[in-house]
Amino acid sequence: MAQLKFGVIGHKGRMGQALEAAIADAGHCLCVGVDAGGDIAAHAGQCDVLVDFSAPQALADNLAAAVAAGRPIVVGTTGLEAAHFAMLADAARSVAVLQSGNFSLGVTLLAHLVQEAAARLGNDWDIEVLEMHHRMKVDAPSGTAKLLGEAAAAGRGIALADHMESGRHGMTGARAVGAIGFATLRGGTVAGEHSVIMAGNEERIVLSHSAENRMIFARGAVRAAEWLTGQGAGRYTMQDVLGL
Amino acid sequence: MAQLKFGVIGHKGRMGQALEAAIADAGHCLCVGVDAGGDIAAHAGQCDVLVDFSAPQALADNLAAAVAAGRPIVVGTTGLEAAHFAMLADAARSVAVLQSGNFSLGVTLLAHLVQEAAARLGNDWDIEVLEMHHRMKVDAPSGTAKLLGEAAAAGRGIALADHMESGRHGMTGARAVGAIGFATLRGGTVAGEHSVIMAGNEERIVLSHSAENRMIFARGAVRAAEWLTGQGAGRYTMQDVLGL
Amino acid sequence: MAQLKFGVIGHKGRMGQALEAAIADAGHCLCVGVDAGGDIAAHAGQCDVLVDFSAPQALADNLAAAVAAGRPIVVGTTGLEAAHFAMLADAARSVAVLQSGNFSLGVTLLAHLVQEAAARLGNDWDIEVLEMHHRMKVDAPSGTAKLLGEAAAAGRGIALADHMESGRHGMTGARAVGAIGFATLRGGTVAGEHSVIMAGNEERIVLSHSAENRMIFARGAVRAAEWLTGQGAGRYTMQDVLGL
Amino acid sequence: MAQLKFGVIGHKGRMGQALEAAIADAGHCLCVGVDAGGDIAAHAGQCDVLVDFSAPQALADNLAAAVAAGRPIVVGTTGLEAAHFAMLADAARSVAVLQSGNFSLGVTLLAHLVQEAAARLGNDWDIEVLEMHHRMKVDAPSGTAKLLGEAAAAGRGIALADHMESGRHGMTGARAVGAIGFATLRGGTVAGEHSVIMAGNEERIVLSHSAENRMIFARGAVRAAEWLTGQGAGRYTMQDVLGL
Repeated sequence: MAQLKFGVIGHKGRMGQALEAAIADAGHCLCVGVDAGGDIAAHAGQCDVLVDFSAPQALADNLAAAVAAGRPIVVGTTGLEAAHFAMLADAARSVAVLQSGNFSLGVTLLAHLVQEAAARLGNDWDIEVLEMHHRMKVDAPSGTAKLLGEAAAAGRGIALADHMESGRHGMTGARAVGAIGFATLRGGTVAGEHSVIMAGNEERIVLSHSAENRMIFARGAVRAAEWLTGQGAGRYTMQDVLGL
Repeated sequence: MAQLKFGVIGHKGRMGQALEAAIADAGHCLCVGVDAGGDIAAHAGQCDVLVDFSAPQALADNLAAAVAAGRPIVVGTTGLEAAHFAMLADAARSVAVLQSGNFSLGVTLLAHLVQEAAARLGNDWDIEVLEMHHRMKVDAPSGTAKLLGEAAAAGRGIALADHMESGRHGMTGARAVGAIGFATLRGGTVAGEHSVIMAGNEERIVLSHSAENRMIFARGAVRAAEWLTGQGAGRYTMQDVLGL
Repeated sequence: MAQLKFGVIGHKGRMGQALEAAIADAGHCLCVGVDAGGDIAAHAGQCDVLVDFSAPQALADNLAAAVAAGRPIVVGTTGLEAAHFAMLADAARSVAVLQSGNFSLGVTLLAHLVQEAAARLGNDWDIEVLEMHHRMKVDAPSGTAKLLGEAAAAGRGIALADHMESGRHGMTGARAVGAIGFATLRGGTVAGEHSVIMAGNEERIVLSHSAENRMIFARGAVRAAEWLTGQGAGRYTMQDVLGL
Repeated sequence: MAQLKFGVIGHKGRMGQALEAAIADAGHCLCVGVDAGGDIAAHAGQCDVLVDFSAPQALADNLAAAVAAGRPIVVGTTGLEAAHFAMLADAARSVAVLQSGNFSLGVTLLAHLVQEAAARLGNDWDIEVLEMHHRMKVDAPSGTAKLLGEAAAAGRGIALADHMESGRHGMTGARAVGAIGFATLRGGTVAGEHSVIMAGNEERIVLSHSAENRMIFARGAVRAAEWLTGQGAGRYTMQDVLGL
């Protein structure tokens, strides 16, 4: 496809560095890169597409810059909360917005399988999401773990927020019926591993994904950006990009 | 449901013993039990349904007994080959026949997910099936492993027999493109563990099932037998029983 | 060996039921069984050995009963804290006391391997303990997870209490150097699975144990009780019983 | 330490490329690199140490070159058989020789733990070795899998060759008592994953290693070469290098 000019917010972080390589590998150009604390607004108009891997507190400004410049924006920042999702919905009325906790083909397919499995298993199957990431990650559970928990909740027709059980420690009491549990491992240089465990009576299904390195996410984000430049205003997902 | 009279072939084996317990638990009656080498023909007419967990070489006689008596038959014998599948198809013209390598809800759902995943991933994703069973199991790979391999092959629209790679040892050369590999572990008292590994470039999806004990298979076989008594002649699967 | 008379505290719980079967299997006799809330004091003198699988708040009374009757006591209660360990040390001045978070041969050996590995790996290898148990378990992490964390801490020559990181959720910040992390999964009927993950730079060692059912723990507790009846006053471990 | 001049045989292969990077990272110099089919003899004298990651059929010539030039040699070639081990022993009478199926700290420690565990568990614990590597690997099981099997055999005081069970397929019969089994997975870009499974009655211990990429092996081989330049003639192992 035609060469695109990328504006990357958070370009000095781990994902930003991987993105820079993936943008070059795909024959595109990193037109503007601003630091996690920096301001993209003055430069957004020079870019074809913005990619934000910075921090939740910068999201409002970054979306405002995309809307002001009329540019599509890919958001990979993790640790988002309800208020951030409202901002995304808002911006999506003006420009094309794609937010995801994970840009790999594998995780996108896994989420699809998790939703399907959860839809077919009753509440006597307990759902748990386990993730492991490198020692430098600062938030828990990961954006991808939440994405997988959302897929399970969607399969059951419930809201994740009402059934999330994370950070167990101490006298927790028995597991709540219908809960979706999360457990977090941190260590080494692990790029990202996720398992959704469905534990029934005397049998278990486990659906897992592991990433060997961060480049698969960066390549997926570039692919998402390419796809997004052809879309009108709206809120999109990786399932849309991959046609799942 | 109404109490059913079961005829079990291979009732002294491990699965036969589990079946006897599951039949009693479900309120049914083990009307006739014959040993793996025994002959069910004289007694088939007294039973509402036959269940065969014996050996491949006994399959022809067992199916003939079911057909002669006009009784549905559930077949859980493993190690079947092409000739046996032809016999099953033949018998299914006269009576209801359900053969499966695994009677658990979990494995049946897993096979469904494997087929879906295989259909959406290209040949640059390598598919491997891994299984572990207790030290007494005599055939490899397990019937369930083959069932999962069949599901993957169905997803890809290929025949498993043309792409199966099992028992690797020595100078094997590089993996064939499009192969479906199998690896077999044996040891201890493991009731049954299966993983389908889909290994792409720098990422992997793994879809697994583990059984804590043999009773889940026995309960599933009883559920299949109950369901089968209400069906006409034909060939059925666990997916039919579970409505997947 | 000679038949022993067992006094079991907490005999109506899951472990109590398994113990009752294991005591009978080994040719011994369940002389007295009291409920988790019950009082063993009046009956302790009739028993050769006491086994306590009840609750932390009952520990003081149970140890007092053992001391008063001069009987050895095996303690498998989980959720113990510093004050309970002081009570155990106290009672061990009068009678033989063996407390363990896990009575299986496998976990006892695993703890030994974990200690050895932790002793040889520097602080650039991050240690995490992961456990999964059935949906009814009320405390987290499990006694066995703590036992494995203690083994890792002993290998490093540190106190677990000073480096334990459990129940991660939210903005946790980066992993502390030298931390020993814990993550807890709950679901289904899982008898007990534990992994100690040692995550270095671009490589990982994982040391795991899985129990297929609760009977292995009950059999181990009976074996510990048999061994303990031949010992003088003192504090003992499963490593002593198994000669590791 | 002082800069060393490396002679690498097989320098165009995957491991050769990783070695070249690791040699540079450590501040040494790749003095001579010959292709898998090439001849190091003419250049060995210019090097401080030789590293061979080529093919079994080249081993005799490579060892001869090391002996003729009086240079230590590190051998990482896989697929070696009894005759090759005899050659290594022979060369070790003249120069320092270190051969290993794996140069990572993690695998070296794992082998040590496997030997210890195997020494303490009876023959009612079945030992299996599972490995997964990328789709291009041509031999099975991997050199590392054999190294781990040798460690288990050493722990039991038996010869691996007499008890190896690899490539199960078809009607295998029940598992032989005391066998050490191997199973091989191939797919994707997996750098190397190994598990030693010890399966007892109703419980299991699993000791695993996973490598995120090939660089850990290359760095370990460089570390081995550095250490080897200070040693006299003899046969050495990674356990010696790491002081395990």
